[in-house]
Amino acid sequence: MATGDIGLIGLAVMGQNLILNMNDKGFVVVAYNRTTSKVDHFLENEAKGTKIQGAHSIEELVAKLKRPRKIVLLVKAGSAVDDFIKQLSPHLEAGDIIIDGGNSHYPDSIRRTKELEAKGLLFVGAGVSGGEEGARYGPSLMPGGSPAAWPAIKEIFQKTAAQVNGEPCCDWVGETGSGHFVKMVHNGIEYGDMQLIAEAYDILKRGLDLPEDEIADIFNKWNTGVLDSFLIEITANILKFNDDDGEPVVSKILDKAGQKGTGKWTAIAALDAGTAVTLIGEAVFARCLSAVKEERVRASKTLAGPQKEPFRGDKQQFIDDLEQALYASKIISYTQGFMLMRESAKELGWNLNYAGIARMWRGGCIIKSVFLGDIASAYSKNSNLESLLFDGFFNKAVHKAQPGWRRVIAQAILWGVPTPAFSTALAFFDGYRSEIVPANLVQAQRDYFGAHTFRVLPGKENERFKAGADIHVNWTGRGGNVSSTAYNT
Amino acid sequence: MATGDIGLIGLAVMGQNLILNMNDKGFVVVAYNRTTSKVDHFLENEAKGTKIQGAHSIEELVAKLKRPRKIVLLVKAGSAVDDFIKQLSPHLEAGDIIIDGGNSHYPDSIRRTKELEAKGLLFVGAGVSGGEEGARYGPSLMPGGSPAAWPAIKEIFQKTAAQVNGEPCCDWVGETGSGHFVKMVHNGIEYGDMQLIAEAYDILKRGLDLPEDEIADIFNKWNTGVLDSFLIEITANILKFNDDDGEPVVSKILDKAGQKGTGKWTAIAALDAGTAVTLIGEAVFARCLSAVKEERVRASKTLAGPQKEPFRGDKQQFIDDLEQALYASKIISYTQGFMLMRESAKELGWNLNYAGIARMWRGGCIIKSVFLGDIASAYSKNSNLESLLFDGFFNKAVHKAQPGWRRVIAQAILWGVPTPAFSTALAFFDGYRSEIVPANLVQAQRDYFGAHTFRVLPGKENERFKAGADIHVNWTGRGGNVSSTAYNT
Repeated sequence: MATGDIGLIGLAVMGQNLILNMNDKGFVVVAYNRTTSKVDHFLENEAKGTKIQGAHSIEELVAKLKRPRKIVLLVKAGSAVDDFIKQLSPHLEAGDIIIDGGNSHYPDSIRRTKELEAKGLLFVGAGVSGGEEGARYGPSLMPGGSPAAWPAIKEIFQKTAAQVNGEPCCDWVGETGSGHFVKMVHNGIEYGDMQLIAEAYDILKRGLDLPEDEIADIFNKWNTGVLDSFLIEITANILKFNDDDGEPVVSKILDKAGQKGTGKWTAIAALDAGTAVTLIGEAVFARCLSAVKEERVRASKTLAGPQKEPFRGDKQQFIDDLEQALYASKIISYTQGFMLMRESAKELGWNLNYAGIARMWRGGCIIKSVFLGDIASAYSKNSNLESLLFDGFFNKAVHKAQPGWRRVIAQAILWGVPTPAFSTALAFFDGYRSEIVPANLVQAQRDYFGAHTFRVLPGKENERFKAGADIHVNWTGRGGNVSSTAYNT
Repeated sequence: MATGDIGLIGLAVMGQNLILNMNDKGFVVVAYNRTTSKVDHFLENEAKGTKIQGAHSIEELVAKLKRPRKIVLLVKAGSAVDDFIKQLSPHLEAGDIIIDGGNSHYPDSIRRTKELEAKGLLFVGAGVSGGEEGARYGPSLMPGGSPAAWPAIKEIFQKTAAQVNGEPCCDWVGETGSGHFVKMVHNGIEYGDMQLIAEAYDILKRGLDLPEDEIADIFNKWNTGVLDSFLIEITANILKFNDDDGEPVVSKILDKAGQKGTGKWTAIAALDAGTAVTLIGEAVFARCLSAVKEERVRASKTLAGPQKEPFRGDKQQFIDDLEQALYASKIISYTQGFMLMRESAKELGWNLNYAGIARMWRGGCIIKSVFLGDIASAYSKNSNLESLLFDGFFNKAVHKAQPGWRRVIAQAILWGVPTPAFSTALAFFDGYRSEIVPANLVQAQRDYFGAHTFRVLPGKENERFKAGADIHVNWTGRGGNVSSTAYNT
């Protein structure tokens, strides 16, 4: 008789840890791996003395599971996922659930949901964040896909996930590929948070000339305030961590940052959705610029910056300003991230639970922070909140931060310390709060050289410029009044 | 007997104008259109009294052309191009040339080159810029594809193109999809140039509180200096252009900028190539932000900027600084654009002619400028130039511009006038000339939470940190020395 609550395919560290975690929470997990010797090794070692069961074939795995069967794939994103789905499907019955817990790209999850639902099966694309430690002791779980699957997996998922203040860091995200989409945005935001922290570190190091251990103290202090978060905490720990010779390890690390592509995916998704997610974009590009190390070294010898003047202001005031600059920039980054989710949800027909998403990210994952509790509160108060900046709490916070934020960037610019993420956050804020941006000139140019037409600004309508009309002006007296035509035969 | 030098399919305005242009240059053009009544109409009107011939079927078109046959498609990008290629191919012979002059995405041109070469035919993907007027009197032409096609089309293309100082704005770009790729980068750069001009206008208007006609005078003056270009010229004309009531038309235009996608394509290509093309990215995102007009209007009522203080400095000095800020930012934008072309050429196996590309853009197209002559000189002096910033001329220019550039952005930030493109250009410059960027901290974070490993900084090697090794540090004393493993089964 089948006694397995859930099956899991893929016994790399993440898979093993997730199984052990689910076992700890009282669920019977059936483990399977293509190379079946790994199953035996796991049962004899890490899983020894637990209720974990092994399977040596797909048939055995399926046979050992209670109905509706729930099978988690933790395999390499891409064709391996499709291969296992293909192998599994013939052995499953209507209502059974395949869950992809890997780092799949959301369009694949959209496709897989449709394909499996057409066969009467259910599919869940679940973002899993928190690395190996998160998998073992409580990850952030972001499941989306076939809504009918949620009641069947809810208890296992919510008990397996990290808990913050008694609430699980897992909730139903939404339809089709939304779970992996939200995980992708999480990773993009993670890129942004890391870049913001790196810029703050750079300003303290190259601007204020502070040594690593003093910078660590600053981060430790920040970690008791509005910036309280996992990334600020580990940054302080990193900056305190010295090599045997007493030199900070961080200053011995090559300044070429790697990337695994999810930040890039987020930036591309933003471009496709036409959403100004500038901070993640700059964070990804900052990693690209870091990667051309040898070119930068050559450039450093031929491109001089401004003459560095010693800082004459109030140091503590400047450090407090920097905290506010980091906080305000972070508010903008999350504002942009939620803007992207809102736009994509509109386009892809998802009903996203924004408060739930903030709660999922509050613990278990890399961007976990107190801040996410404030975002959850904002969306709990108003689930239709148009923008985080319209929420009272964040509105007040950004206004309070604003003077210091501006002073810090202006100072960094005069020092020659690059602040691409701080700067783009402020530019977004100033653009967003502008009733009129200079895109009117851009539209005039496009109409001038390409007869692309424009619309009239509300309040400026007249006989020539009618509301709702596509207007072309004969700017030069030569072009005539014909507007641009597309290539058509 | 066949007397046609070249055929053209697609009689929309662009196609008609290009035919009339080629006819003026002494070539016999055969015109064809799917709706053949358009052919008759064209011959009886615009083409009356010329040597232009008409064709009412693909067979007739092909029969009227000398060998090797050259046929230009000016049809809507996408499936229409493939449809015509499919219709044409069976009637063509080895060595015949199909030229796509539409706005195709370069991956399509890569594919089409391969498909046609496999059939013994030749393919050219030609970027055509300059709009209807360019097509009629001399466009910028950027042909790439099958190298064997170039000798056969060179004379027609170079004579049809715009001429600057006796040199044609057309040269062979490179292999497969490189012509359309370079056209795409041209359009991306155009987005950047327009955004930079818009920011300068905004600073003069909202920062210095100048009226449009005074701003026009400033642009007119700039157009006699280093910024001398088509876009600066038309901006001055636009700002002078008043409605019947005496109000500048530009201030009656709705500030929502449209986009046709090529700027977005460039940003995505940059992300895919891992190249920090930040300025075009910000320009695209600025259009996205302009598009959420109604949301901005609501935001403007709840998000206050800094208290505006009247400008107390030297106005003319500030305007001169602004000219330098615009110039330096433009240098960065083109540096990034050429960086993208270099990286993509490496990846896609293209041998690009960078001096030639700058010359192609010098006239006939939207970004035409004196500046492009300077870029052509830089690459003529050194075809392997790693970066525009390493060229003596631009190196000197950016150093001269630097103090004013920094002052302008710092001032705009304190005013609350958004400068996303100016700011990202400066951040790139400061990052690019940094031997060390704070990506070392990013790498430490990645190793801390995900055991992603790092490399040692040259000069800091020791027993623990070996050159070339992927190093993991047990930051917490808990994680062990095992580095991150990919999901594998």
